[in-house]
Amino acid sequence: MKLYFEEYEVNTIQASMGRTITETDIVIHAGQTGDFYPHHIDAEWSKNNVFGQRVAYGTLILSVAAGQLAREMNEVAFSYGYDKVRFISPVFIGDTITSKGEIVGKREYAKRTEDFGLVDEQVTVTNQRGETVIAFIHIYMVEKKK
Amino acid sequence: MKLYFEEYEVNTIQASMGRTITETDIVIHAGQTGDFYPHHIDAEWSKNNVFGQRVAYGTLILSVAAGQLAREMNEVAFSYGYDKVRFISPVFIGDTITSKGEIVGKREYAKRTEDFGLVDEQVTVTNQRGETVIAFIHIYMVEKKK
Amino acid sequence: MKLYFEEYEVNTIQASMGRTITETDIVIHAGQTGDFYPHHIDAEWSKNNVFGQRVAYGTLILSVAAGQLAREMNEVAFSYGYDKVRFISPVFIGDTITSKGEIVGKREYAKRTEDFGLVDEQVTVTNQRGETVIAFIHIYMVEKKK
Amino acid sequence: MKLYFEEYEVNTIQASMGRTITETDIVIHAGQTGDFYPHHIDAEWSKNNVFGQRVAYGTLILSVAAGQLAREMNEVAFSYGYDKVRFISPVFIGDTITSKGEIVGKREYAKRTEDFGLVDEQVTVTNQRGETVIAFIHIYMVEKKK
Amino acid sequence: MKLYFEEYEVNTIQASMGRTITETDIVIHAGQTGDFYPHHIDAEWSKNNVFGQRVAYGTLILSVAAGQLAREMNEVAFSYGYDKVRFISPVFIGDTITSKGEIVGKREYAKRTEDFGLVDEQVTVTNQRGETVIAFIHIYMVEKKK
Amino acid sequence: MKLYFEEYEVNTIQASMGRTITETDIVIHAGQTGDFYPHHIDAEWSKNNVFGQRVAYGTLILSVAAGQLAREMNEVAFSYGYDKVRFISPVFIGDTITSKGEIVGKREYAKRTEDFGLVDEQVTVTNQRGETVIAFIHIYMVEKKK
Repeated sequence: MKLYFEEYEVNTIQASMGRTITETDIVIHAGQTGDFYPHHIDAEWSKNNVFGQRVAYGTLILSVAAGQLAREMNEVAFSYGYDKVRFISPVFIGDTITSKGEIVGKREYAKRTEDFGLVDEQVTVTNQRGETVIAFIHIYMVEKKK
Repeated sequence: MKLYFEEYEVNTIQASMGRTITETDIVIHAGQTGDFYPHHIDAEWSKNNVFGQRVAYGTLILSVAAGQLAREMNEVAFSYGYDKVRFISPVFIGDTITSKGEIVGKREYAKRTEDFGLVDEQVTVTNQRGETVIAFIHIYMVEKKK
Repeated sequence: MKLYFEEYEVNTIQASMGRTITETDIVIHAGQTGDFYPHHIDAEWSKNNVFGQRVAYGTLILSVAAGQLAREMNEVAFSYGYDKVRFISPVFIGDTITSKGEIVGKREYAKRTEDFGLVDEQVTVTNQRGETVIAFIHIYMVEKKK
Repeated sequence: MKLYFEEYEVNTIQASMGRTITETDIVIHAGQTGDFYPHHIDAEWSKNNVFGQRVAYGTLILSVAAGQLAREMNEVAFSYGYDKVRFISPVFIGDTITSKGEIVGKREYAKRTEDFGLVDEQVTVTNQRGETVIAFIHIYMVEKKK
Repeated sequence: MKLYFEEYEVNTIQASMGRTITETDIVIHAGQTGDFYPHHIDAEWSKNNVFGQRVAYGTLILSVAAGQLAREMNEVAFSYGYDKVRFISPVFIGDTITSKGEIVGKREYAKRTEDFGLVDEQVTVTNQRGETVIAFIHIYMVEKKK
Repeated sequence: MKLYFEEYEVNTIQASMGRTITETDIVIHAGQTGDFYPHHIDAEWSKNNVFGQRVAYGTLILSVAAGQLAREMNEVAFSYGYDKVRFISPVFIGDTITSKGEIVGKREYAKRTEDFGLVDEQVTVTNQRGETVIAFIHIYMVEKKK
């Protein structure tokens, strides 16, 4: 698929299937990042902490959400960055998350204004209780059609 | 360790050890996120693409960098979010990255101004050639001492 | 998506993106299956064997191929089984495989003829040199529309 | 071990030890194959589906069964393919499976009739309740002794 | 950090954070080692065995304990070996372990007496009930300052 | 298999197949243990260090060796501990190791002298150049036949 900057339309929405965040996902993320903080991998410590149980890593949920929305590939778009990543509610082991992306803005890309534009996708991740757990803006650098 | 909001000092710097990003890290990240785009896992496709080889996932490098700086735990700080995450240069298989964090700002947290403040840490990730590959602000919500 | 038995059309083709089979995939498959035969994980032994190098597990390539074609989900189809799975050429570390599926037949399902029919998809997996490495028939049990 | 075509005897049986299929096995198989269908990884969706819970991938059970029977290596045998792979009962998280292989046939291998013959092993996988969950024929290409 | 042989002091103690040993850790260790004994991965078999449930691998607990105490790196110390590794109590899925290391001895290293000495650290690993599960001596070869 | 204490014979030898230690094994071991020391995962740092390249974890090689010799299960033997674990030569990425176990001693088990005895197996792990990389004594607690 090739979808050029000019062809993106604000308010377009995509939604992912659901996925349950498991203890395995957390253990693998600990191993991938080297972050062995007890919030995520010490069940005893977590009992006496703010949430009463282990919570998923913010970077895990961000990574999974980005993956859930990496569906049909746009060959002329690149990931430029993220803005306003906010961890709103904790994700616990066994929670099931779904990601929704909405195109909320298009902007010129000052450095390469002739070739590329920037597209902002507001991503919202919700759990099985309908609570928003994380929200962020995924910025894509997209080729202009010319 | 308990380091309260009042005790954070702007310009404080921490630096991580290095870590080589391997093909294994990329394959595990594909499996963790479900993003099987060819930029990351198809060596043939990548030969003919912009970088001439597979590149690491942005979310992988962000996650690893956050992990590299998750050193001694501050029991009164929480991860609030990320701002201005920017993918500046590609990370290739075999590149070695190091993360540096610098406290660049302290702010009131409007919603809970009596209990917490926000601390901004500017994180910069560089490769073995000294190039910045990713930069972002990690925002911590930190208890006030009172 | 709901695609009923009556709606499947013989000769319909789907094709996957490519994926490079890495040493990591082989090591993870060894761990997942418990098959530690030297053909797959002993580089020294393999030097003196028929292919001169380690080869990927047949079940790895079968599993990856099935995954490559697990694209948009048909909610009324189930995996019934595989027929005529044949390992035609070896897959080496670094080979890139692509899977193609073609609907080659529709049949009645004797046990539940009113509710379901069987659909045969011929799957062919090729490497970057255009050689067929594995071929098999994936049989789906698909709801009838009635 | 070297067991030549002429030495295989029909009705010979081998049986594996047991192995519990865990949530971890399923998550790792999702990551290895890229198949993120909700039947396997979405606990909420599965509650309302035919089995009321997540089920293991067919290719996971096939791969594990093949691994369970990859015991003492026969240096003169090669995996030729699988026939009649049938998913008979679902495998749920926590089920324990055992694999049994029985030599059920020996045949000439038309393409290389002087050097090799084909041996059919009927593999049957059962769970802790004695139910057959998967069955298939593993075909080996075995050197002739001459 | 550079801590020379002369600077080590007997009775110095370090203690790790806690970590819960999960089913995932066991499954990954099975895959890493190729040890698929039913004590660790067959829940049914284990029900009727001495502990009534699956137990963690001794090598897993040893490896995790060594990792828990691999904190700030001493650039002039090397791992020389382990002595008196003893598996004292079983570790079950869900148990949380903490490791403590105490310097209990310093000795000459006969082979390279001018450059290096040996330092013995007694490591004790306890679970959430305060029971010792494993104990061992970690021997470091440490540079002399001269 | 049931092999009682009385039936063990000193000088009995078992030998494993070979296995290549891959970068993947090291990355997974880092993740499993939380030991992210640069000796194992920082290729740049390692270039300038004693071995000029990354080396495998001692606990990885110990765990793999124990797994390589966990062949036919003796139902009346238990792992009691390890003695004299010595890291003799480094294992580099791509080295292939083989493990040999020799029964070198039988002793009374003071605590339960009527029921159990101790059996010492000297394990020696060699690489493809014939160098010993690690050696240790695996102590088994074995039921007496009575």
